[in-house]
Amino acid sequence: MLTGKDYRESLADGRIVYCDGERVEDVSTADRFRRSVDVIAGGYDRYHDDNPDAISAYLNAPSSIEELRDHANLKVDPLISSTYTSLMTLLTSADRIEEIRPESSAAIRKYVRQMQEKDLRIVECITDAKGDRAKRPGQQEDRDAYLRVVEQRPDGVVIRGAKLHISWAPLAHELMTIPTKAMKPGEEEYAIACAVPVNAPGVKIINVTADPLAGDLRDAPISTDAHSPMGFVIFDDVFVPNDRIFLNGETEAAASFAHSLGLWVRINGLKNMADEADVMVGFAQLVAEANGLERVDQIKDKIADMVIHATLIRATLEAAMGNSSISPEGVVVPDELYANTGKFQGAAYRNAMIQHIQDIAGGSVVTAPSTKDLANPEIGEIVRKYMGTKQSIDGNYRTRLFHALRDFTASAYAGHQAVSVIQAGGGLFAQRVVTRSRYDMATARQMALDLACLDDPWA
Amino acid sequence: MLTGKDYRESLADGRIVYCDGERVEDVSTADRFRRSVDVIAGGYDRYHDDNPDAISAYLNAPSSIEELRDHANLKVDPLISSTYTSLMTLLTSADRIEEIRPESSAAIRKYVRQMQEKDLRIVECITDAKGDRAKRPGQQEDRDAYLRVVEQRPDGVVIRGAKLHISWAPLAHELMTIPTKAMKPGEEEYAIACAVPVNAPGVKIINVTADPLAGDLRDAPISTDAHSPMGFVIFDDVFVPNDRIFLNGETEAAASFAHSLGLWVRINGLKNMADEADVMVGFAQLVAEANGLERVDQIKDKIADMVIHATLIRATLEAAMGNSSISPEGVVVPDELYANTGKFQGAAYRNAMIQHIQDIAGGSVVTAPSTKDLANPEIGEIVRKYMGTKQSIDGNYRTRLFHALRDFTASAYAGHQAVSVIQAGGGLFAQRVVTRSRYDMATARQMALDLACLDDPWA
Amino acid sequence: MLTGKDYRESLADGRIVYCDGERVEDVSTADRFRRSVDVIAGGYDRYHDDNPDAISAYLNAPSSIEELRDHANLKVDPLISSTYTSLMTLLTSADRIEEIRPESSAAIRKYVRQMQEKDLRIVECITDAKGDRAKRPGQQEDRDAYLRVVEQRPDGVVIRGAKLHISWAPLAHELMTIPTKAMKPGEEEYAIACAVPVNAPGVKIINVTADPLAGDLRDAPISTDAHSPMGFVIFDDVFVPNDRIFLNGETEAAASFAHSLGLWVRINGLKNMADEADVMVGFAQLVAEANGLERVDQIKDKIADMVIHATLIRATLEAAMGNSSISPEGVVVPDELYANTGKFQGAAYRNAMIQHIQDIAGGSVVTAPSTKDLANPEIGEIVRKYMGTKQSIDGNYRTRLFHALRDFTASAYAGHQAVSVIQAGGGLFAQRVVTRSRYDMATARQMALDLACLDDPWA
Amino acid sequence: MLTGKDYRESLADGRIVYCDGERVEDVSTADRFRRSVDVIAGGYDRYHDDNPDAISAYLNAPSSIEELRDHANLKVDPLISSTYTSLMTLLTSADRIEEIRPESSAAIRKYVRQMQEKDLRIVECITDAKGDRAKRPGQQEDRDAYLRVVEQRPDGVVIRGAKLHISWAPLAHELMTIPTKAMKPGEEEYAIACAVPVNAPGVKIINVTADPLAGDLRDAPISTDAHSPMGFVIFDDVFVPNDRIFLNGETEAAASFAHSLGLWVRINGLKNMADEADVMVGFAQLVAEANGLERVDQIKDKIADMVIHATLIRATLEAAMGNSSISPEGVVVPDELYANTGKFQGAAYRNAMIQHIQDIAGGSVVTAPSTKDLANPEIGEIVRKYMGTKQSIDGNYRTRLFHALRDFTASAYAGHQAVSVIQAGGGLFAQRVVTRSRYDMATARQMALDLACLDDPWA
Repeated sequence: MLTGKDYRESLADGRIVYCDGERVEDVSTADRFRRSVDVIAGGYDRYHDDNPDAISAYLNAPSSIEELRDHANLKVDPLISSTYTSLMTLLTSADRIEEIRPESSAAIRKYVRQMQEKDLRIVECITDAKGDRAKRPGQQEDRDAYLRVVEQRPDGVVIRGAKLHISWAPLAHELMTIPTKAMKPGEEEYAIACAVPVNAPGVKIINVTADPLAGDLRDAPISTDAHSPMGFVIFDDVFVPNDRIFLNGETEAAASFAHSLGLWVRINGLKNMADEADVMVGFAQLVAEANGLERVDQIKDKIADMVIHATLIRATLEAAMGNSSISPEGVVVPDELYANTGKFQGAAYRNAMIQHIQDIAGGSVVTAPSTKDLANPEIGEIVRKYMGTKQSIDGNYRTRLFHALRDFTASAYAGHQAVSVIQAGGGLFAQRVVTRSRYDMATARQMALDLACLDDPWA
Repeated sequence: MLTGKDYRESLADGRIVYCDGERVEDVSTADRFRRSVDVIAGGYDRYHDDNPDAISAYLNAPSSIEELRDHANLKVDPLISSTYTSLMTLLTSADRIEEIRPESSAAIRKYVRQMQEKDLRIVECITDAKGDRAKRPGQQEDRDAYLRVVEQRPDGVVIRGAKLHISWAPLAHELMTIPTKAMKPGEEEYAIACAVPVNAPGVKIINVTADPLAGDLRDAPISTDAHSPMGFVIFDDVFVPNDRIFLNGETEAAASFAHSLGLWVRINGLKNMADEADVMVGFAQLVAEANGLERVDQIKDKIADMVIHATLIRATLEAAMGNSSISPEGVVVPDELYANTGKFQGAAYRNAMIQHIQDIAGGSVVTAPSTKDLANPEIGEIVRKYMGTKQSIDGNYRTRLFHALRDFTASAYAGHQAVSVIQAGGGLFAQRVVTRSRYDMATARQMALDLACLDDPWA
Repeated sequence: MLTGKDYRESLADGRIVYCDGERVEDVSTADRFRRSVDVIAGGYDRYHDDNPDAISAYLNAPSSIEELRDHANLKVDPLISSTYTSLMTLLTSADRIEEIRPESSAAIRKYVRQMQEKDLRIVECITDAKGDRAKRPGQQEDRDAYLRVVEQRPDGVVIRGAKLHISWAPLAHELMTIPTKAMKPGEEEYAIACAVPVNAPGVKIINVTADPLAGDLRDAPISTDAHSPMGFVIFDDVFVPNDRIFLNGETEAAASFAHSLGLWVRINGLKNMADEADVMVGFAQLVAEANGLERVDQIKDKIADMVIHATLIRATLEAAMGNSSISPEGVVVPDELYANTGKFQGAAYRNAMIQHIQDIAGGSVVTAPSTKDLANPEIGEIVRKYMGTKQSIDGNYRTRLFHALRDFTASAYAGHQAVSVIQAGGGLFAQRVVTRSRYDMATARQMALDLACLDDPWA
Repeated sequence: MLTGKDYRESLADGRIVYCDGERVEDVSTADRFRRSVDVIAGGYDRYHDDNPDAISAYLNAPSSIEELRDHANLKVDPLISSTYTSLMTLLTSADRIEEIRPESSAAIRKYVRQMQEKDLRIVECITDAKGDRAKRPGQQEDRDAYLRVVEQRPDGVVIRGAKLHISWAPLAHELMTIPTKAMKPGEEEYAIACAVPVNAPGVKIINVTADPLAGDLRDAPISTDAHSPMGFVIFDDVFVPNDRIFLNGETEAAASFAHSLGLWVRINGLKNMADEADVMVGFAQLVAEANGLERVDQIKDKIADMVIHATLIRATLEAAMGNSSISPEGVVVPDELYANTGKFQGAAYRNAMIQHIQDIAGGSVVTAPSTKDLANPEIGEIVRKYMGTKQSIDGNYRTRLFHALRDFTASAYAGHQAVSVIQAGGGLFAQRVVTRSRYDMATARQMALDLACLDDPWA
């Protein structure tokens, strides 16, 4: 297993990374990535085990509901989390494609073992450039709008295309590349799943970040650690050897990777959402107290609204875990209907939660003086005086609370989070479609027929 | 235990019942109550056991989560359900008031045993007339606005007042009368809890119903059985003997009965709400199919919205049961936060669910010809012709489906249900207040402080 | 012009009307229609003018915005209102079809003049039975699912089909029958618009009502006059002579009648909606006062929500009138975008308004004793005692206020209104589609391009 | 009148301005303010008139509805806009306080004339620090929590306190300082209204900005010009001479300044809101087109939702202008009920509009590569390739559209706008309270009583 230090060194592997129009020579030391590298290195140190045969304790699948709960409660960094879901996705897919592509099934198991042994970090590359969204992959003006195989060779394939919205790509080791959706006969070139090292020739990663580096980090207590580099990953004719190919032309199995991934990202995503909802309630309560408003009826009612929202999300998490099923491979899989419902609810109403916080907090969310103002000897004291509420809520505390609220609700990072939550799962409409598809409509229909004293007209 | 027949006979006990301005001489045979009496009598027959020592299987409290689930799934009539919650409420309260009023604790246990042995039916009488809602009980212009003790006697008390919104009162045997809210010192006369037979001198019940009797019962397939008589119960100087008094002047314990009741009505209420939400999804799907619209995107999206709502409610039910605690008396008590959240959500969005059904269904919800029109030889065939969709959805079925939808969404019964759901628990604002009070705010606050890297200013 | 008495007599014309499975021999005297006939007869008397050449003052089109406002404020009955919109619809259509069917243009003008001179009442027959809504008229299993011409004769046509959701049909004189939507080539038989007397051979009207006749009219102070008979109008091979045919096979003009109708029903519909919204605010305020809650913050906030809704609707009415255009015929036509927006908003949030009233009012909306209970000497006084709030809000007033609220929000009539508002205009989705189509998207697009400093990629 | 150049020079007047903890020596040349200074200087040049007696054409009050419309449509910069509302506020207040403080009435008129002649720029200073919001000004632990007079002198007063959320303060010339709310007897020291030059001794302005300067301006096409410096203005014992004092201790008139201001900021605020809503519709349409999704039903439905919202706001603007009244001074004052309703609606649903845009746009709102990436010769072409949709929507255009959307919906500037819109007018609850207070409740109540056939119980 790697230490944080090992991890930092591993990043100097020739990878091609751009940020804001410039090539980043060494991501492990670049200013733009420093805080992010620290976060991931810290994650390595957290799970490090000196035993030479050790495998990261986080990377094992829960086999009971209790283990599932414990696993969901572990503190993790985003890259170990994406590595976990990537490995589980591959293992689940291995079973599903065993029959139609046995060599891949074996390749997957070998690859997973290697990754665990080498303690590397993987990101999922799913969303394609997509071109004209009204047209299928095979109908695009530019055939590369979806990542595709441009050349079949005896020892592997050459792929071309771009994968978008990839968090943490420049700081990972591997790109798990899978089709973004189901493919149809005739779209074989797009039915490609494989693993590509970040430093493979032809891979280029162009990043944007919502990092707060331009200002004082103390003004951004949340995003400093929480922001992530977002990669636009280009596969510019990248060769992938056979032992890293997991699907190649089998259109009927193209959707199974993305579907397996859904199973595994879901419960942690929902756990994070439920925790974040509680944090939002907490912020609303803190700022109500900081303003002296915590006993005002209309403020309490807004917080009640937030409490109900947070509790609905947590209820879906509880119901999803409590109604888990055990997969054929002995793995606990949370209930999809409850998990998707929670995910949709959390995404659809997050904006309203943020608005409640801003409404309770007041204009100082965006106008509170900065940390450097607080520290300035000429104006610091007077800022503290006027930002204070009363002896028990001093101006220093209240100003810093507003910095946290700005960072959480009104910064570039906040904008990034707002978009991410809506788009994870393909936009709100897609999330509703998925949720409906998991519902037991036959039973609901029959309950209605019974109440109406009617026989089924279709029966 | 009583049979349905025994029950019918038991109702001829001299009770004073009015309906639409007229005295009802015998409720067991009166037109206005016939269907309702049938429903309750059927409930007796369902749980009847010939064994002379038998006690109704439904009236025992679950002692494990599994039993709780099973109990919630039993098919019951409304009066056995209210009897169950009344008895459990009394037993829970018996423990709570043991110290401050030991004689009542004993009286309660004896009363509960009697009710179980005699197999009688109890309704809860809670809501007072209330007069001016801006004033407390002791400040009203008319002191009787809240039910109160007007005379203390050696052998009991005389009570005066009215209890409102009492479903099924004219068809029950006993009125469990408890304070509607907390009382303060000086309001001792209002701190009265007791059991009063329906036929006690001075009790008068004035009823309204949302029954569909005026029309053809076949046009009202749901409300025919589901409507209930709603009683305005007057206690016109009713004497209550000591062994039926459970609280008398102990203001500090006035709220404990209503709170105990909350524990027991909650899970069944939420179960019914979750089932009804599924039924609403079912109706939306059925009428979409009946109109040939089940594959239209915007219709599917509306149904997805309903699915999400129904699943959120069921998730709270699952979470409330799964997070139950065991009371000191060994009884399983579902989690209050999840249950209240579900109850609020169900109440607040029910209207939107009904609107979706009406929106998908179309105007025939209110304009579909009647059952008698279908049966009329001159016009029946032509009605069926034009109410039909295609061979597989004939006009008879579709017309009757619209009758069910009218009954469920647009009848006097539907109006009754809409109001009941909003008001159960004291209106939507009160339901939010209660929900917020059950939330673990301290943890949420701390989570927010941690994320903001701040110390607690109050600590 | 006719008097109310003349009108009553005019109804005995052999029309074939059914209600609840039975033939109604004389609608002018039948119990089920008595109140409705009174309403219409009253409308005749209101506008009666003895001058033998007089034409009803209401039936002229406004030619200035001031006249439009005045016209919208006139007190009218529903049948004169539908007559007005029918005549205006026909006149507008006459211009539109002048070129493609000149003989109809002349027939329309003659027909309109006749109707004005004879002072008859017209209802619009638009919505067809529709069969399978996923299929076009020409694809239905039953070709009669949309009203159609089954025989072309030298002197006219024979039509067959049904028109649904027709308010007041059994009490009108004429059925203005127009296509429900655009027709395509090949659907000529469905492109039929004509005028049919209610008593024409082959016309059968099957009615349902949300009348409150089953109970005491005093319990239903609103619906007693406001309910309407809803007709399912069957055209069972009805002959229509040439001078009453306004469209016959010209598919390209099929939609123009329905579109013209939209212009004319809109402003009155929106005016009624705005007034009803104010009434709902008023009810909320009245019942808050009647409960002693008018100074409670959360109650005031609910009423504020209703005020905002009511004001938004009225703002659209003001904007629609203020931005009227003058048609080529010199008639004032209110702005369609504002009017449709208001109509959608009113329909979509009406339910929420009703829910606010029910939430503020409490359970007595459905459990208040009846008028006969109030009048009963044994219980009347005690009902008044407990339904009262304080000296200034007595029990009699408060009980009757609850009767009005039940009638308005929780009766069969209330259900009827809820469905009607949603469905008028074809359901909420259709109403949104129409609204969007009236928006000036080109300007909005350009404003966004300017702000983004971008050139139009389509230009 | 001043030119832009004159304006720039006028800023070097010794004013004390801080930004991010450091003193800004010359705001006219400082990096952080350069773009903002350009915007205001451009505004001067736009309205410049060489005539030595000229007064800015924008600074006159409309006297007819037509003039009001024209005035609202003028293109202005934020500082001339706040100058206009400040001057009008003062003139309106001059009439209101004529009787209770005639010397101020004269002082105001003189001050207004001076400002017009000198062509200076004014910002409104209203919101105090407020301390504990649960307590009144006179009850605060720190008496300076609301700006107050700390010394009365023969020639003027000395004031102390802070005013928050002041846009553009460091670039203005004058601070119009008025009480934030009504004051009570005993709070005379807080009843102070006056005009203070920005460079008066004791004035310190601490600024934050949501400027995009840290990055490439081309990535921020909107906020580059639209962001504003937000000032925390401290009055550290500032002397104000008598001819600049407009209120001094007359508590009964304390609220009249803020109320007058409300009249004048309203219509321009609502106009901007209506325009912004159209821009949001435009962005939604543009990005739907750019993604090839403009014909998808669910996308069109989201845009319809936005169209309805935008039209509701514009309808309130139309209704507010159309129902204007003429003040005693001959000035057109738009209707307050419609204006406040529009303002609340715009604020409450703006978030939902933003969410729709983000939902339609997809993740590239936050992950699109930067302008510098587009320009980089190694990666620019490949970015354009994969960001493109089809030949007619190239990658350069689409990437820049996403930059605009990020800037508008997900940047620090976007967060600033979101908070500003909610807080303008005191938060959403306060905005509802104000709206309700403008409603004609007496008429609504009477309409409801009439419909219910009831007499007024209060009459």
